[in-house]
Amino acid sequence: MKYDVRDIYQDFEFLVDQEVMMQGWVRNHRKQKEFGFIDFNDGTCFQNVQIVYDHSLADFEEIQKIRVGSALTVTGKVIRSPKEGQLFEVQLSSWQMEGDCPLDYPIQPKRHSREFLREQAYLRARTNLFGAVFRVRSLTAMAIHEYFQKNHYVYVHTPLITTTDCEGSDQMFKITTLDLNHLPMVDGKVDMSKDLFGHQAYITGTGQLHGEAFALSYKKIYTFGPTFRTENSNTKTHANEFWMIEPEIAFCDLEGLMDIEEEMLKFVVSYVLEHAKEEIAFFDQFVEKGLKAKLEKLIHSKFVRISHHDVVDILKKADVKWEFEPDYGEDIAKEHERYITEYFDGPVFITDWPKDIKAWYMKVNPDGKTVAAVDLEVPGAGELMGGSQREEDYQKLLQRIDEMHVNKEPIEWYCNLRRFGGCYHSGFGMGFERLLIYLTGVENIRDVIPFPRTPGNCEY
Amino acid sequence: MKYDVRDIYQDFEFLVDQEVMMQGWVRNHRKQKEFGFIDFNDGTCFQNVQIVYDHSLADFEEIQKIRVGSALTVTGKVIRSPKEGQLFEVQLSSWQMEGDCPLDYPIQPKRHSREFLREQAYLRARTNLFGAVFRVRSLTAMAIHEYFQKNHYVYVHTPLITTTDCEGSDQMFKITTLDLNHLPMVDGKVDMSKDLFGHQAYITGTGQLHGEAFALSYKKIYTFGPTFRTENSNTKTHANEFWMIEPEIAFCDLEGLMDIEEEMLKFVVSYVLEHAKEEIAFFDQFVEKGLKAKLEKLIHSKFVRISHHDVVDILKKADVKWEFEPDYGEDIAKEHERYITEYFDGPVFITDWPKDIKAWYMKVNPDGKTVAAVDLEVPGAGELMGGSQREEDYQKLLQRIDEMHVNKEPIEWYCNLRRFGGCYHSGFGMGFERLLIYLTGVENIRDVIPFPRTPGNCEY
Repeated sequence: MKYDVRDIYQDFEFLVDQEVMMQGWVRNHRKQKEFGFIDFNDGTCFQNVQIVYDHSLADFEEIQKIRVGSALTVTGKVIRSPKEGQLFEVQLSSWQMEGDCPLDYPIQPKRHSREFLREQAYLRARTNLFGAVFRVRSLTAMAIHEYFQKNHYVYVHTPLITTTDCEGSDQMFKITTLDLNHLPMVDGKVDMSKDLFGHQAYITGTGQLHGEAFALSYKKIYTFGPTFRTENSNTKTHANEFWMIEPEIAFCDLEGLMDIEEEMLKFVVSYVLEHAKEEIAFFDQFVEKGLKAKLEKLIHSKFVRISHHDVVDILKKADVKWEFEPDYGEDIAKEHERYITEYFDGPVFITDWPKDIKAWYMKVNPDGKTVAAVDLEVPGAGELMGGSQREEDYQKLLQRIDEMHVNKEPIEWYCNLRRFGGCYHSGFGMGFERLLIYLTGVENIRDVIPFPRTPGNCEY
Repeated sequence: MKYDVRDIYQDFEFLVDQEVMMQGWVRNHRKQKEFGFIDFNDGTCFQNVQIVYDHSLADFEEIQKIRVGSALTVTGKVIRSPKEGQLFEVQLSSWQMEGDCPLDYPIQPKRHSREFLREQAYLRARTNLFGAVFRVRSLTAMAIHEYFQKNHYVYVHTPLITTTDCEGSDQMFKITTLDLNHLPMVDGKVDMSKDLFGHQAYITGTGQLHGEAFALSYKKIYTFGPTFRTENSNTKTHANEFWMIEPEIAFCDLEGLMDIEEEMLKFVVSYVLEHAKEEIAFFDQFVEKGLKAKLEKLIHSKFVRISHHDVVDILKKADVKWEFEPDYGEDIAKEHERYITEYFDGPVFITDWPKDIKAWYMKVNPDGKTVAAVDLEVPGAGELMGGSQREEDYQKLLQRIDEMHVNKEPIEWYCNLRRFGGCYHSGFGMGFERLLIYLTGVENIRDVIPFPRTPGNCEY
C-alpha cells in the first residue's frame, strides 16, 4: 500500500515489519561494495527515510546506479533502525525509476550557499533549509487563518487592482493593457481612457481602506494577500512583492488592538512550535541558535506597552553612542528598536507617535501632537506589526487629508464611511515575510519567498 | 459585559435574563407611539437582534430619533421572545450613539436592486444578501485551507509578478514603474531595461507552473491567490481580477486527480452547510430555490467519469436542436454542459479532450489525439474545475511547445523540472468565484467579489 513518509513516521509502531510503497526523491545515495543507503524524501515531512539494500537483490548493480535527484517508487519492509536517533529504515524489496536525474543536477548532497540556491529558486525547496522554510510558511499561513476564523473574523479579499492610493501612487506599479510601443496619445499625453478600465490603474500596496469598509459591516475582518511596492531598494528586508495580513476591527481602540496583536502572535507562534517541530529544531541548530527558546519565551511573556515619548526618554538616558540621535519628534531607528527590545528583554508595543511622521488616516490624540498608533517591536526582528486607531471623525479626517495633501477624490467613499454609522475602529498590518524571518531565523526576505521579486530580479 | 451577537445566540440559555452590552448598527427602526423596535446587527452573524424599548425610559424621545445605519453601543436584558421563530429580544436599558447616520444613507430597509448595490460596493455588505455572500466567501476560503492542510498539502504563494506566460502574454496586464508620458526610448521602442525589473513584467494569470516546481519538492501543494486576465468581456462570469485555487500533486494520474477533486468539493460543501446554516437557508429562500437540497445531494452523489468522445456521442443522440453542433474535435458549449449534467443528474467529470483545443503542458494520451485532461461540470454552474495530467516527458513537452508556438525561453526552468527527477504529476485549477456562484446561487460574478474589477469598472 502507498504511504506518505509522514504517515510512516506517525504510524510507525503499526507499520513495523510491514511492506510499504513510497514515492519520492533521492536526496543522497551512499554506496558500499555489498550494500548501500538511499536517503529518500517525499516532501511530506522534513525527515528522510533511509532505504537500505544489499547485494542479495537480483538488480543490485542497477540499484547502485540510481542517482541523486531521481524520482522513485520503492517498496520495502519497515524495520526498526539499529542506528541511534533514527526511528526506522526501509529494507528495499523492489523499485521503479519514475524520473531519472543527470549528474549536472544542481542540488547535490553538500552545503550550497543561499545565494547559489536563490538562483535555483525552482529547485531549492528540495534542500533541508528551504524545504523547512516553505513548509513553515504554509503552516504559519494556516495558523493565521485559524486564529482569525476561530474568533469569527471575516476573511476579505480586498482588490489588488485599484485606483485608490493609500500609500501614495508613486509607490505603486502602474498596470495597463495598452501597447507601450504604440500608446494612444491626446494633447501630448497618453490617452488612458483607451485602457481597459478607462483610466490609470495600479496594483495595490495595502488593503486597509477596503478592509475598513468591511469592518464597518462585519465588526471583525482580516485580509491576507499579496501587496506590491515599487521601492528600488536592495536590502535584506525589502521585496517588491510580499504578503500582508491586515485585520481591522470596529468598536476597538488602541488598547483593544494591542490585546489582539499580542494574542494573535502568541497563537501563531504556539501553532508553529506544535506543527513544525522538526523544522524548528533544524533552524535552532543550523540557522539561529536559541530560536526555539526565543519563541517559547515569547508565548509566556507579557508584551510591554510604552509611549514613543517614554521610549525616547529611555534612549536619551542610555549610555550609548547613537548613529541617529533619538528625538521626540522623529521616527526611531533600527539601532533604537534593538536597544529597546533588549532593554525590556521582550516584545514592546510603542504607542502614541508624533503625528507628522505617521499616516493621514490615524486618529489624532487629544494632545494634538501625537496619533493613536502602535508599532510592535520584537527582539531580533524589529518592527513586526504597525497599527493605529483610525480617525473616525469625518471633519477631522478631511482636515488631515488637506494638511497632508492627500488626493481626496479617489477616497471620497472611504471618508463617507465616517458619515454612515462610522464608529471608533482600529487595525494593523503585519508583513508576512517579516513574521517568517522572526519564526525561522532566516535573515533575508529573498529566502522566505518562494520566487522573490526585487529590483532587477524577476526570474522564474 | 460586551457580547458579539453570535455569542448571545450561542449562549442564549445561559444569558437569558442577564444584562448584555452589544455594539453594532441599526438595520431598521419601527416606532410606535409608546414603544419601538430596533433591528440591530453587529456583523458577527447573519441574524439581527430585536431591541425593544418603551416610553418608561427617560430618554424615550431621544431613542425614537435613532436613524437607520447608526452605530450604537446598547445595554439591555436578554429575554425570551414572545414572537414565533424569534429566539430572544433585548430590552433596552441604556445606549450610546457611536456614529450617527444621515437620512440620505443609501442602504435603507427596503429591497434594493443588485445593480444599485453594486454601485455602493463599500456599503453593500451591510445588507442581508451581501452580508451572507461575503461571509460564505470567507468560510469557503477557510474550508479550502482546512481540506488541503488536513491532508498535509503545502500552501505555496506563487508569484503574482511574472515574466512567464503560461496563458499567453496578450492576456496579461503589463506592469511598469516608468512614467507613461515620458517613456525612455531606444531605436524607436520603449527601453524596458530602464524599468524596475530590467524588462517587461506582467501580473499573472496562473500559478500553475510555479506550483508544479513545488509539487516536485513537496509532493502535494496548493495555491490560493488572486489572478488576472485582461479579457475585455462583459459577461456574468468574467472579471479581470479573481481568485484561484491550483493544487498540484506529484505521483498522481488523472484518476487520482479526480478522486481529489471530488473529495475536496464534497468537503467544502459540507463545511459550508455546517458553518453557514443561516446564510444557506437565506439563499435557499430568496436566491435559488432548492439550493440546500442541491448541495446536500452533491455530498452524497458519486461523480460520473466519462470521456469527451462519449459525451459527444450522447449529445449527438440527444433529441435537441443545438445552437452549436457537438463535434468530437471541438470544445463543448454551455448548452452541452447543461444537458450532460441534467442527463446524469449530477456532477460529471469529462476526460480525454481533443489535444488541439487544450493547453501545451497537458499529457498527450497514447492515441496521439487526446490529452489526459479533465473538466468537472456541475449542475447549474457549468465548468467548476479544469485539470490535467502534465506532460512529464522532457522531449515530448519540447515538441508540444514547438507545435503550439509557445515562447520557450522564459519557461526553460519549467521544462528542466522534467530532467531533474520529474515524475508523473497532475493538477487542477478552480475559480473561487465560480465555486461561490455554485454555493450561493448568486449568478453574477460581480456579486461574489467584494470590489469587482471588470472592463471600464475599477471604482473603489
